[in-house]
Amino acid sequence: MAQNIYDNPEFFEGYSRLGRSVEGLDGASEWPVLRAMLPDLSGRRVLDLGCGYGWFCRWAREHGAASVLGIDVSEKMLERARATTTDPAISYLRADAERLDLPAASFDLVYSSLALHYIEDLGALFSKFYDAAVPGGNLVFSVEHPIFMAPTHQGFAQAADGQKFWPLDNYLVEGARTRDWLAKGVTKQHRTVATYLNLLLRAGFTLTHLEEWGPTDEQIAGRPDWADERHRPYFMLVSARR
Amino acid sequence: MAQNIYDNPEFFEGYSRLGRSVEGLDGASEWPVLRAMLPDLSGRRVLDLGCGYGWFCRWAREHGAASVLGIDVSEKMLERARATTTDPAISYLRADAERLDLPAASFDLVYSSLALHYIEDLGALFSKFYDAAVPGGNLVFSVEHPIFMAPTHQGFAQAADGQKFWPLDNYLVEGARTRDWLAKGVTKQHRTVATYLNLLLRAGFTLTHLEEWGPTDEQIAGRPDWADERHRPYFMLVSARR
Repeated sequence: MAQNIYDNPEFFEGYSRLGRSVEGLDGASEWPVLRAMLPDLSGRRVLDLGCGYGWFCRWAREHGAASVLGIDVSEKMLERARATTTDPAISYLRADAERLDLPAASFDLVYSSLALHYIEDLGALFSKFYDAAVPGGNLVFSVEHPIFMAPTHQGFAQAADGQKFWPLDNYLVEGARTRDWLAKGVTKQHRTVATYLNLLLRAGFTLTHLEEWGPTDEQIAGRPDWADERHRPYFMLVSARR
Repeated sequence: MAQNIYDNPEFFEGYSRLGRSVEGLDGASEWPVLRAMLPDLSGRRVLDLGCGYGWFCRWAREHGAASVLGIDVSEKMLERARATTTDPAISYLRADAERLDLPAASFDLVYSSLALHYIEDLGALFSKFYDAAVPGGNLVFSVEHPIFMAPTHQGFAQAADGQKFWPLDNYLVEGARTRDWLAKGVTKQHRTVATYLNLLLRAGFTLTHLEEWGPTDEQIAGRPDWADERHRPYFMLVSARR
């Protein structure tokens, strides 16, 4: 079972103060790229796994989705999600992604933002997504990039000549990575880019696009400290078709 | 036009002494993985772009290929390739991959080992591969992994606690990487994993498998110094279908 760190009070408190929690989708640096990978949502049935506060669920409805099912393991996040909408076409469900039962061929889009890197058996979950999607349906997801997640020391370092770098190690050693981020002992699952994509293909999906997120020139102009983000990708964004 | 470093005498001399030059395919650490990604070759027409000494061309014929066309930009390598076979079903052609004309729908397998990272306009070449492959045909290629190619300092470093790491920088900054390897000023083209795959998809191919090469436990048992190779992948191996 994936760790439910979101119901840890210390983590929840820290998470609720992040830009993406306060400002929603527009507070997430990778959102413009992820958004561009989405299909037209008009009349579509959407599943959002790891919906958190429900920002994407509401956005999908504002952009024409017929219905949205948001699933999250965190009761605290769902409470807040439910409090922000009275839209009867948005449903929220508390469930552990690793023990999920989904109705067959019921969604035009399966979406998941920064949740799948908590999943231990991702192959099984991709198969569930495949069965839950209609033929021709889309899967769009983001995860922490494997280059970002892999290293022992997860931060930039500086060479003697001043060049900043990302001290990558154990990229090919997959498995749990436990770090202190907002709270002590947050456990994510490291897998390589190849493993993510091969699990996706093995489940039956066809890859349609891959992004390794880094800031645009515009974003760097507004936030010069983001230039270092070009040394390694922070997020991996994937779209696929059933 | 891609650099033809292979006809540089110093480079050629160094290259000809590498394990993969002396022992052929079995001298290439990634060959077992690449081999496993190949389709059955019986009766197939094969194109090998960047065929070098022709090791793979001969191997393909030994494994049932009906015909093999080996293309390389290096006259020196082709000379040696031609000297090693009298097989009339193997043809060698000197050509610059960036100015290549290929017959339409003529190959069941397009293969390329460690050549595409020299190509400047890879999208155009993938389109040529697509047109040259039959419907249902395969593309299998290897390149130096983008994580390997990206950094300013292309070698392992060691942290104060003894942990080795790969000092990754400029991963998201694509373009030429000029390094001294066997000779001075060898220029390769760095592109991200995402760019490789998106160019492939845009050309019309469907991704079927991705490998980021690292040594197996067996290989490390035989060569304990290879353990560091797990800190970052050396090669990227891709298979796709038209």
